[in-house]
Amino acid sequence: MALLVQKYGGTSVGTVERIEAVADRVFKHKQQGDDIVVVVSAMSGETNKLIDLAKSVTTSPSAREMDVLLSTGEQVTIALLSMALMRRGLDARSYTGSQIRITTDNAHGKARIQKIDTEAMRADLDAGRVIVAAGFQGADEFGNITTLGRGGSDTTGVALAAALKADECQIYTDVDGVYTTDPRVVDSARRLDKITFEEMLEMASLGSKILQIRSVEFAGKYQVPLRVLSSFVEGEGTLITTEGNKSMEQPAVSGIAFNRDEAKLTLKGVPDLPGIASRILGPISDANIEVDMIVQNISSVDGTTDFTFTVHRNEYDQALSTLNSISEELGATEVLSDAKIAKVSIVGVGMRSHAGVASSMFRALAAESINIQLISTSEIKVSVIIDEKYMELAVRALHSAFKLGDCVNDVSET
Amino acid sequence: MALLVQKYGGTSVGTVERIEAVADRVFKHKQQGDDIVVVVSAMSGETNKLIDLAKSVTTSPSAREMDVLLSTGEQVTIALLSMALMRRGLDARSYTGSQIRITTDNAHGKARIQKIDTEAMRADLDAGRVIVAAGFQGADEFGNITTLGRGGSDTTGVALAAALKADECQIYTDVDGVYTTDPRVVDSARRLDKITFEEMLEMASLGSKILQIRSVEFAGKYQVPLRVLSSFVEGEGTLITTEGNKSMEQPAVSGIAFNRDEAKLTLKGVPDLPGIASRILGPISDANIEVDMIVQNISSVDGTTDFTFTVHRNEYDQALSTLNSISEELGATEVLSDAKIAKVSIVGVGMRSHAGVASSMFRALAAESINIQLISTSEIKVSVIIDEKYMELAVRALHSAFKLGDCVNDVSET
Repeated sequence: MALLVQKYGGTSVGTVERIEAVADRVFKHKQQGDDIVVVVSAMSGETNKLIDLAKSVTTSPSAREMDVLLSTGEQVTIALLSMALMRRGLDARSYTGSQIRITTDNAHGKARIQKIDTEAMRADLDAGRVIVAAGFQGADEFGNITTLGRGGSDTTGVALAAALKADECQIYTDVDGVYTTDPRVVDSARRLDKITFEEMLEMASLGSKILQIRSVEFAGKYQVPLRVLSSFVEGEGTLITTEGNKSMEQPAVSGIAFNRDEAKLTLKGVPDLPGIASRILGPISDANIEVDMIVQNISSVDGTTDFTFTVHRNEYDQALSTLNSISEELGATEVLSDAKIAKVSIVGVGMRSHAGVASSMFRALAAESINIQLISTSEIKVSVIIDEKYMELAVRALHSAFKLGDCVNDVSET
Repeated sequence: MALLVQKYGGTSVGTVERIEAVADRVFKHKQQGDDIVVVVSAMSGETNKLIDLAKSVTTSPSAREMDVLLSTGEQVTIALLSMALMRRGLDARSYTGSQIRITTDNAHGKARIQKIDTEAMRADLDAGRVIVAAGFQGADEFGNITTLGRGGSDTTGVALAAALKADECQIYTDVDGVYTTDPRVVDSARRLDKITFEEMLEMASLGSKILQIRSVEFAGKYQVPLRVLSSFVEGEGTLITTEGNKSMEQPAVSGIAFNRDEAKLTLKGVPDLPGIASRILGPISDANIEVDMIVQNISSVDGTTDFTFTVHRNEYDQALSTLNSISEELGATEVLSDAKIAKVSIVGVGMRSHAGVASSMFRALAAESINIQLISTSEIKVSVIIDEKYMELAVRALHSAFKLGDCVNDVSET
């Protein structure tokens, strides 16, 4: 008998029929003897409908009132799902974030969870009750309704699992797990049975948008085993857990991540003096622009260097004009920029113990005549910036080079 | 400077435009220096939409979960109205029933208010804030969401007015006040400037569906001056208050109420013995059928009597079959029944000091050759049951006999 926290997103509870399907699954688990806490989002489309209502009243709605408004979305779902569970003969009880109570700070719209009371939930579980909790919401110490920001239902699920010391937090979504890379780009992309929190963070932040990063961080911090599964297809999904649980003979690389969200900026020929990096990035940061990769080459013989960094493509124009305005003052010879780039990364905790992973990557790209513009590495990933037109080719080449493809598919392809 | 509680029903907040109009009115009152607590219902149609959702999940939804579901309706309105008020530069803050907190018993779907905390509201009012409260809802002592039943927003308005000792509770609705009778039946029906709580109760329970009876009782009990006004037309509305406030020279009759909701049943020739009434009405009450008028004539020379009562027309069939099943055992000679009846009543606290009001009523009906089937009287009303086809005629005759018509209209009609 396990204690499971199951989180169902907006698509999984998007219609009454889908809510019924969720109730069927919860019923099945309950019959198997598991204790269940269900966390649900608003029915898909509802949150946007509420936002549109607010927009029709004012262009700058108060954040406090926005939370009062949006939190009704999940409240509708918890009531309907509880009813559906009770019709199946289960004892179920719904709770809003404020009823549980999930205490947050008062940062309306992006509140952080501070404390979760588990006493009442424990009593419910002991009584054999299914708990149906509203995701995405809480209340501050004064009882003001808060929301955790979009996608915050994942965070609610993980937080409840951590607070209740659940055996697993299961995130039901519209994909059946985490893949070695995007199956729309690589046919032979394979579902991973297991992945570590760190790998998942790198995969998620690099563009595999399955789980909210924050919920993965949270799960890692409290060591809550996290499983991504499909609401619509039966299967084991992907278990996200600590490294220790992974097989000893794991491959060096677990997956290939990629995105087209970035743009590259270079300040050429700046004097290579102490403090130059902060004099360049200071104004960028003051403009609230987040920087991702930063590369500075060694100095030329004339004592100057080239300084390159990437920003989100949405902030490209602003970053470029900021850079143009400071280049003269910094004595740069030229400002170069390119938004037509892609970032491709190999991710895997196995890199720690496998030498030569980066050079395998570079060799595979070279074999396809793909030029590497920037390189950035961390302990468990290597990222490169390339021309965006080669992105799919690069992903397929790397997927194949690191033998990530599904075995069955590989055989059929030979 | 007055403290006003203004309650706006579902039609008054049915669209974003109407919510804007409510915000304009609140703004105007606030500019005039009044302190305002606004109580709102769900946008019209929303509650039914939520009920339909629940019905599509289960035929017998849990009352607790139904309250969780339905309470979202008002929560949406309080957020939107607060935003609209803030856009007008007012400081506004929304509260759900549970946030206020309005403590109720745990009778989900028909909860009774037990206690209202006013401390936080007082602080808000002192700070110049407009309070926007969700009507119809509260929470029990454990924080479970409860609702007061349909129309319960009126009750919330009156209860907040009583708790805050407001100068007036204004109920904004789609009619501009309480009329001497239904203007659709009598052209010259006139809006009453004032009416007593008792009269309003008799008018409401007899079919003038403007205010929830319970809220009038509540207002009467706590002596909260209640005003019915239109959301759509400017005007003074009708003030419902204690008798002392009415003019000394008030007319004997204030209004004419009527309905077609009842059916009449008679047990003929039952032995006139002690306990016979309870032997007849016991089984009716056991079947959960509510009885309105009860008339028993004096005994005939043979020691038998006829026993007549009325029930709601919806429960007519059930009442009739109950009566048929006990008539033999009670020794009745016959069961008579008639669903084609109407009840017409004259209402007025003036009756207390005016003799002959009832006989004026009977004379007016006789002048139109309308036969009276049953009569029932209380201190401030006289009700008669007549053939339903004469209902409109009777109402017009009585409206004219007691000179209730609008003076201007009367002149134009001559």
